[in-house]
Amino acid sequence: MPLFHGLSAFPLTPADPGGRVDAGALGALLDRLADAGVDSIGLLGSTGVYAYLTRAERRRAIEAAVSRVGGRVPIIVGVGALRTDDAQDLARDAQAAGADGLLLAPVSYTPLTDEEVFRHFVAVAGATELPLCIYNNPSTTHFAFSDELIARLASVPRIVAVKNPAPSSAEAAAKLQALRGRVPPGFAIGCSGDWNAPGAILAGAVGWYSVLGGLLPQPCVALTRAAQAKDQAEVRRLDAILEPLWALFKQHGSLRVVYAAANLLGLTDAQPPRPLLPLDPAERERIRDALDRATEGTARPAEEPALAD
Amino acid sequence: MPLFHGLSAFPLTPADPGGRVDAGALGALLDRLADAGVDSIGLLGSTGVYAYLTRAERRRAIEAAVSRVGGRVPIIVGVGALRTDDAQDLARDAQAAGADGLLLAPVSYTPLTDEEVFRHFVAVAGATELPLCIYNNPSTTHFAFSDELIARLASVPRIVAVKNPAPSSAEAAAKLQALRGRVPPGFAIGCSGDWNAPGAILAGAVGWYSVLGGLLPQPCVALTRAAQAKDQAEVRRLDAILEPLWALFKQHGSLRVVYAAANLLGLTDAQPPRPLLPLDPAERERIRDALDRATEGTARPAEEPALAD
Repeated sequence: MPLFHGLSAFPLTPADPGGRVDAGALGALLDRLADAGVDSIGLLGSTGVYAYLTRAERRRAIEAAVSRVGGRVPIIVGVGALRTDDAQDLARDAQAAGADGLLLAPVSYTPLTDEEVFRHFVAVAGATELPLCIYNNPSTTHFAFSDELIARLASVPRIVAVKNPAPSSAEAAAKLQALRGRVPPGFAIGCSGDWNAPGAILAGAVGWYSVLGGLLPQPCVALTRAAQAKDQAEVRRLDAILEPLWALFKQHGSLRVVYAAANLLGLTDAQPPRPLLPLDPAERERIRDALDRATEGTARPAEEPALAD
Repeated sequence: MPLFHGLSAFPLTPADPGGRVDAGALGALLDRLADAGVDSIGLLGSTGVYAYLTRAERRRAIEAAVSRVGGRVPIIVGVGALRTDDAQDLARDAQAAGADGLLLAPVSYTPLTDEEVFRHFVAVAGATELPLCIYNNPSTTHFAFSDELIARLASVPRIVAVKNPAPSSAEAAAKLQALRGRVPPGFAIGCSGDWNAPGAILAGAVGWYSVLGGLLPQPCVALTRAAQAKDQAEVRRLDAILEPLWALFKQHGSLRVVYAAANLLGLTDAQPPRPLLPLDPAERERIRDALDRATEGTARPAEEPALAD
């Protein structure tokens, strides 16, 4: 499968309270993803708390990932930073450490103009030889890409893909068609936003950048394959089983939910970086129930670990 | 005047393209502010591009400021950071370097909950002995404080002030009264948003956190004194003279405008950190005209430098 197509699984990055990455725990998470057959790993995405980690720790995380699963599954690395020169350095680090592709979010503090984002992307895309995906995530970056800007960026060498928020099912086909008409044929239009992404694949998106895929890869691989095969009944069945997780994602933000879920599954004791707080015990019970439903309904039993106490 | 009252002037932080602070140019900017009689300096605010500078450069900026104007005018230092531990370190650095107060913005990437922001502020306020002002700036931090959360924070030791976006004139009195009723008597309610702030002072706000005050301190001191004296006619007169600058602030963001204006005034050649771009020549001409109007209409001629070519 071409890079930026299929299921890109976005794991959290286990780290201690001081922001030191736990390379062993990260490697174990990545093994699960590779074993489940995800199409790529989205390392240091928003779920991978890239924004909260130093350049040195981000480099360590990439090196750990490449040494653990490099060659088995492509590794796409988030290189977003507030400063253009910092993002260029992060891109060079990713290439030097063996990444297969880059994901660049226009992280902002001062709100950015389209021209500022365009030049930022040109500068970062020019810093390495790696293919780059536009990370359009307005809820965290506070910058929303127009189709016009995506089309302009799609003509820049090495900018070959976009990760857009998945539109609702009702809008997906029209929105995808509109953007498809503006970009070169090989440009990969993919989606994030787990609860709408399978519908977007049914409507023609070629990639799903998935938070849940970084935690429960097996059902997300199954959902991706069903959507790629246009098997609407199977997509609906799997989507219904995952619905309690989507509801928790919408309520708490997917990041807090996947940390709690990873704790419950015994995958890591890591907590989100402060100021982000772990969810409270009542919510963790809801997550336990949602995980039970997801793993009973979709997993081959041997693949998912038992829930930890 | 008590800290966090009156005019707090927010200068830009001159730095080279790599983010190295120009301590000499910063000192010269601060001298102008102290000479004009501002009530405090808001160092490393949003206009001071704190979010784009390393911890080491932020420390250097504070040391330069304290050595240049410390003792003449109180220095309030922005210590915002995405991570709680980083913000605590920045607060400790500010205290060690001789700052008089702290300004803390809830910088976010993952959207924050009220509880997360509350605990973040408690942790940072507890890291030093300095008084702390809540920096409520939703357009950059993407977190909006409710009056309820401000009231909760106002009971925390050392959290003694808030910098709120100035409401429109029509709403200012009611909004200020509502918040005033929830916080202790000594808690300082001040405003940012230059075009509405003088009206907010007329309506009872005790402080103006001013971007223009960091560039053209003289008219902003005059405007502050007029508003403090409830001289509505003089406030209207000065406000009308500054109106073309307010219009430019609204159109381009005040940060880009003050960089261009500082270049035109010959105060510094520094540019905003990339990805932020300098304004184009046509807009710089509009800024030149607005500065001419502001300096001719409000300044004692000897105080403002001639415009550079």
